[in-house]
Amino acid sequence: MRQLRTLNDLSITEINYLLTQAEKPIAPLNGFYTAANLFFEASTRTKYSFEMAEAKLGIHKFDFAAQASSLEKGESLYDTLKTFESFGTDLLVIRHPQARYYQELEGLNIPIINAGDGAGDHPTQSLLDLLTMKQEFGTLLGLHVVIAGDILHSRVANTNAKILEQLGARVSYAGPAEWMPPHISAKQLLTMDEAVKQADVMMMLRIQTERHDGKAFWSKQSYHNRFGLTEEREQKMLPHAIIMHPAPVNRGVELADSLVEAERSRIFKQVQNGVLVRQSVLKYLLETKGAKRYENIV
Amino acid sequence: MRQLRTLNDLSITEINYLLTQAEKPIAPLNGFYTAANLFFEASTRTKYSFEMAEAKLGIHKFDFAAQASSLEKGESLYDTLKTFESFGTDLLVIRHPQARYYQELEGLNIPIINAGDGAGDHPTQSLLDLLTMKQEFGTLLGLHVVIAGDILHSRVANTNAKILEQLGARVSYAGPAEWMPPHISAKQLLTMDEAVKQADVMMMLRIQTERHDGKAFWSKQSYHNRFGLTEEREQKMLPHAIIMHPAPVNRGVELADSLVEAERSRIFKQVQNGVLVRQSVLKYLLETKGAKRYENIV
Amino acid sequence: MRQLRTLNDLSITEINYLLTQAEKPIAPLNGFYTAANLFFEASTRTKYSFEMAEAKLGIHKFDFAAQASSLEKGESLYDTLKTFESFGTDLLVIRHPQARYYQELEGLNIPIINAGDGAGDHPTQSLLDLLTMKQEFGTLLGLHVVIAGDILHSRVANTNAKILEQLGARVSYAGPAEWMPPHISAKQLLTMDEAVKQADVMMMLRIQTERHDGKAFWSKQSYHNRFGLTEEREQKMLPHAIIMHPAPVNRGVELADSLVEAERSRIFKQVQNGVLVRQSVLKYLLETKGAKRYENIV
Repeated sequence: MRQLRTLNDLSITEINYLLTQAEKPIAPLNGFYTAANLFFEASTRTKYSFEMAEAKLGIHKFDFAAQASSLEKGESLYDTLKTFESFGTDLLVIRHPQARYYQELEGLNIPIINAGDGAGDHPTQSLLDLLTMKQEFGTLLGLHVVIAGDILHSRVANTNAKILEQLGARVSYAGPAEWMPPHISAKQLLTMDEAVKQADVMMMLRIQTERHDGKAFWSKQSYHNRFGLTEEREQKMLPHAIIMHPAPVNRGVELADSLVEAERSRIFKQVQNGVLVRQSVLKYLLETKGAKRYENIV
Repeated sequence: MRQLRTLNDLSITEINYLLTQAEKPIAPLNGFYTAANLFFEASTRTKYSFEMAEAKLGIHKFDFAAQASSLEKGESLYDTLKTFESFGTDLLVIRHPQARYYQELEGLNIPIINAGDGAGDHPTQSLLDLLTMKQEFGTLLGLHVVIAGDILHSRVANTNAKILEQLGARVSYAGPAEWMPPHISAKQLLTMDEAVKQADVMMMLRIQTERHDGKAFWSKQSYHNRFGLTEEREQKMLPHAIIMHPAPVNRGVELADSLVEAERSRIFKQVQNGVLVRQSVLKYLLETKGAKRYENIV
Repeated sequence: MRQLRTLNDLSITEINYLLTQAEKPIAPLNGFYTAANLFFEASTRTKYSFEMAEAKLGIHKFDFAAQASSLEKGESLYDTLKTFESFGTDLLVIRHPQARYYQELEGLNIPIINAGDGAGDHPTQSLLDLLTMKQEFGTLLGLHVVIAGDILHSRVANTNAKILEQLGARVSYAGPAEWMPPHISAKQLLTMDEAVKQADVMMMLRIQTERHDGKAFWSKQSYHNRFGLTEEREQKMLPHAIIMHPAPVNRGVELADSLVEAERSRIFKQVQNGVLVRQSVLKYLLETKGAKRYENIV
């Protein structure tokens, strides 16, 4: 593995390895490693969780600020990243609004971890979601996961659905018909009232208002009533069922304010797991790439 | 102590302990600690002095950039900070324009150091002011401190006055009547010409133009003549008396340009002491909170 | 040496020492050192290459963000830097749009490395250029270097020309007559077609559009045809000749897109060498200044 652009860059064996490693105690890497974190979109969870993972592994991070860089002078993304490669940077972590931005970076000789490409993928988010379910249920085999909300604009919905099914889970969907991609079949569609009674995992998605071109479909309250996880619906969930959400949560819209820190919510557990899977991915990528090591520097 | 929101979170014993520790040689902490520095207002002294203190203690810092975070997507301050808590961050350092911003953060389970809350408090500034006077005079008992200038908008004037009196100093005030809070009695008020002849410490305050809603009361020159520490007034100060100012100084307004680095000025000594007291506070807060330690990481 | 404002702060012996040291294996410094990086202009190469050099030497860096600092409250550059001096910072790295900004900083007692002052100097860029030529040819003696393009607005053209001649190279120039400084003699001027046939080094300069007050002289295509290194011209270069450019390159303007990563291009090698010479300069400056060391911290 030289890249983690989408989950397709990983075999099922590798995914299992990364999840297993994520829960083991972590020690700093031997040698001097550097990662450049390049976030071209706003981020709290992903950005700082990569930073935390890097810090724990003893990886020196470069915090790239696009607006104060030569991108301002018209330099291309490729030339900017080639510059980091020339510095001897060991790894790039990139979030970019353009889907599949990595396709124009094929000339680089440095591993990239995709930290989100527009409405494309977000593989470490998928891994942390898997880890959270694995911790909870031991296995994904036979698990019923309902993905609910803004499926169309979500960069994890499709990736998660695919890998969940590969790992033996059953995936259903709930949410506005307008936000359902064409490949979803009628029998996979549930109303929210049906969903809460059957799901082991209610995987709520964020309404990606920043990707809707300013078009509002529902008022917050009417969305919440029709498609949200209300307090009433939560009461009908199976006793062992859990609530997940990639966050940031639009409180009172996707789910009731009071449910964010409810007993069955794993929302902040997901954040915690984000650090673990990113450690695991960083370590694996650096160890398997035959990365330059500056053995004389520790 | 789990928080340092105002000096009221500290007993007099703790204040003395922190000041004593501040002057002792410092070594990096054992274990892996992280602090998130969240500055929602412009800052040079406070921000980088916390960074320096953290660096010397070997604490890994997160430099939170609000404008590139999920706050942009409407996430609340509480959810943002809960996210840092979930990462396993050991401590938060926060400057925020809203007075008592910390009141809405009571659900967090992570210590906060208040690095300034609007026109509210700024406890580490007060501590560095105390350290500077203690270094100079050995004790605060019997010291005559004149606080001069924009008392009303200053976040340290009131805190400093209270603690100085508790520690046995006498506090007087000088400055425009419009900027005197109602609780100040007539006998505590001095003209600048009276003040300079009596004070052991002339504690000049910064004119907080950014909190005045654009209303200018005086021209710079007329303010300087009436309420500033002019070269003429400095000549009338007691031989041992010192000049303090939290900085940044409006040179030629609160005090004459030539006095900023005058022999009796302790303005850059205060900056130096800021690093020392922040080291002391960070160390104390981490050691007494039973903070998570990642013993396998050093 | 306490400062590196221009190459004039270095003797020829020191320059040779710095270039020799640059190629030796590097180890982290003993002791706790801090550098404040203050970039008041956009930068990718220089900024992050200093960061990389600092990281490898184990120097803790402060990443100063002007727009979130007290400069916003009207504080002067001098007072801002005096503040960093008071923190105990060991070294300042400064890029500033104002030529000779360092002249107003003479009261400081802390070493400055100039990382670019407007259209003034950029000494570490000159050093990395020298290192690149020294690596290639062993010596600069007798080398024919053609500096081509926007000589007038370049902060390295004049510095490089002077030091190259001191080290025994012959310097010629090519480019628009409007961009030739008056001190260049007619016999030093070549057309691009003459230049490519004679040069050992084609040192292409960036068109500093950001310093041209919006005046465009040529279309990109016509500039490229008349003054650029086209694919046709590259074919006429001497077999051993190399192409240099400080970057970012305006691809298709100063040189053909396909030449940026051509075999004879040293453009990304220059980036790599930038890290090496900056390590060398940082180490030398810290070791020779009798810098404060906090021996108890490692």
